[in-house]
Amino acid sequence: MFDAIVSAQTLGTALDSVGVLVEECKINLNEDGLAIRAVDPANVGMVDLELSAEAFESYEADGGVIGVNLSRLEDIAGMAESGQLVHLELDEETRKLHTRIDGLEYTLALIDPDSIRQEPDIPDLDLPARIVVEGRDINRAVTAADMVSDHIALGVDEGDEQFYVDAEGDTDDVHLELDREDLIDLAVGPAHSLFSLDYLKDMNRAIPGDAEVVIELGEEFPVKLHFDVAEGHGAVTFMLAPRIQSD
Amino acid sequence: MFDAIVSAQTLGTALDSVGVLVEECKINLNEDGLAIRAVDPANVGMVDLELSAEAFESYEADGGVIGVNLSRLEDIAGMAESGQLVHLELDEETRKLHTRIDGLEYTLALIDPDSIRQEPDIPDLDLPARIVVEGRDINRAVTAADMVSDHIALGVDEGDEQFYVDAEGDTDDVHLELDREDLIDLAVGPAHSLFSLDYLKDMNRAIPGDAEVVIELGEEFPVKLHFDVAEGHGAVTFMLAPRIQSD
Amino acid sequence: MFDAIVSAQTLGTALDSVGVLVEECKINLNEDGLAIRAVDPANVGMVDLELSAEAFESYEADGGVIGVNLSRLEDIAGMAESGQLVHLELDEETRKLHTRIDGLEYTLALIDPDSIRQEPDIPDLDLPARIVVEGRDINRAVTAADMVSDHIALGVDEGDEQFYVDAEGDTDDVHLELDREDLIDLAVGPAHSLFSLDYLKDMNRAIPGDAEVVIELGEEFPVKLHFDVAEGHGAVTFMLAPRIQSD
Repeated sequence: MFDAIVSAQTLGTALDSVGVLVEECKINLNEDGLAIRAVDPANVGMVDLELSAEAFESYEADGGVIGVNLSRLEDIAGMAESGQLVHLELDEETRKLHTRIDGLEYTLALIDPDSIRQEPDIPDLDLPARIVVEGRDINRAVTAADMVSDHIALGVDEGDEQFYVDAEGDTDDVHLELDREDLIDLAVGPAHSLFSLDYLKDMNRAIPGDAEVVIELGEEFPVKLHFDVAEGHGAVTFMLAPRIQSD
Repeated sequence: MFDAIVSAQTLGTALDSVGVLVEECKINLNEDGLAIRAVDPANVGMVDLELSAEAFESYEADGGVIGVNLSRLEDIAGMAESGQLVHLELDEETRKLHTRIDGLEYTLALIDPDSIRQEPDIPDLDLPARIVVEGRDINRAVTAADMVSDHIALGVDEGDEQFYVDAEGDTDDVHLELDREDLIDLAVGPAHSLFSLDYLKDMNRAIPGDAEVVIELGEEFPVKLHFDVAEGHGAVTFMLAPRIQSD
Repeated sequence: MFDAIVSAQTLGTALDSVGVLVEECKINLNEDGLAIRAVDPANVGMVDLELSAEAFESYEADGGVIGVNLSRLEDIAGMAESGQLVHLELDEETRKLHTRIDGLEYTLALIDPDSIRQEPDIPDLDLPARIVVEGRDINRAVTAADMVSDHIALGVDEGDEQFYVDAEGDTDDVHLELDREDLIDLAVGPAHSLFSLDYLKDMNRAIPGDAEVVIELGEEFPVKLHFDVAEGHGAVTFMLAPRIQSD
């Protein structure tokens, strides 16, 4: 069984973080909250979302799994006005999800979970560098890099104790340096990897400007981006595989 | 003759209600105000607009009829800044409408009224159910229904004393129930009819969110939607023919 | 050498006035400020921009010339948040322009100035009529004229002491009259010329609504539009060649 009430904004923000990577996903209706893990079709970007029962006005579940069309569910959350609640109730028999917003009921057909790409195991990497930065600085870097290139290097300068972002275009270059003063926190270590800008742009769209984002980075290793949602009652982890260095 | 001054906002709002259905229309320049009746080319949706002389800053007319291109006239009203007045003056000789907004004069060529589709007779139906609802609730229902279907059922549950909206899609359904508490007023009666969502979406665009909309409804009968404009000095009535029930 | 710091807004506004006419331009890095002169490929519209050293937070230059892609430089200025400064520094050796906004560095490849269309000599015409008007009145006239025609007549009625704008379409006409009361200043003289609306629309986009615009006008002569930018520390002059009268 599953019966929960949550603010439309909390639901929307949480779903958006998954929706930037995949169109359909499995939602684990655990006793202590929702959990979603998904990987994009090219196996390059992964997301792990946890939304604990405390993020909800009320929450009851007993461990089932449902498959949903994410953009549908995001549209439903988007119909609510600011401050409105969404009531979600699973009808086990018909395999439909009843959603209610102040008298308006939307009955969402579920997708057979077995038809959805398998949930990835997000590897527990021990990455040598750890940077904590505001979401808006990621946005600045990604926006600027997008003007010149389709890939982006993230790295740490151990000597100068700086986190840097590099994008090299055919004619123009973009370079961002953030030192301890600009960052919330920094643990230096050998780190420099190249990433596809398309994926980072998608992930960036899901990162609130005022979020504290923990970046874990290594040398030619995947990057992990971690931030809280739902006032600390939820957490999102993105993982992005590196591109082969072009030179 | 016709010589009138009206706020750009009043003129714009009034014309928009007709403009959602037709591109050209006849305007009756009656002594006591403007009147427009029009029907869309498929004879499915009708509109009846009355804008009394009290809605104008000044108004003089003697009963003529002019044919206008509505989007042109809406564009003219749209050029005004908030609070500006539009001066409309008919030149009988040249058959042009002179419009002036603070020194800017736009001379609009009129259309031969005989070349415009005939004005419909809006039937005086005696519909058994009457619902009074806020414009924003119509907007919610239409927006949600549009996510799943291209038609929509409006009806009244006489037992539960509820007005309901139903849209059934291939996989998902939308259902809105409004009881006496949610409605401004309700007179129950046997009522359930199916309508094209395209037309209701167009009509909805012309309904202010804070308008009190009177809905008159029957069983497999047209629906009438009635609301005031121009602070009560104008009135719009839409009528929409039902679709054949699909099942 | 060239090393300057300027508010992103001042830089953006100044560049926009040139960017509406050409994609690439030469920038003269004079000791007392920047100067740009450019003419569009059809030799119909010209612009002369001067931005004095006082418009900058700091400014050092020794008379060189660089060639830039304007939309690139406008995009860079556009990346800044309100109130942020842009640091511009020329690397003579690599012929690149280093731009920095709060830790973010964008390295812009320059264009060989010899490959850019030659700077025009803006003729020193002695035009008989001089009108001073608010930028927003030019916007009103251009917006309205655009609804009916692709050309526009500007003129002065010497008897009525009025500045007027005329646009004649196939069916509709637009006419704007501004007398001494509506204008900031007026020196009458014989003036009536026809212009391409496309060019005036582009120039209008670069004119702030609250700018005082000096219009110099004659009979079948080019029009000059002059206004200040950067709080008086910069000046833009547009010149537009007349069209042959169509009748």
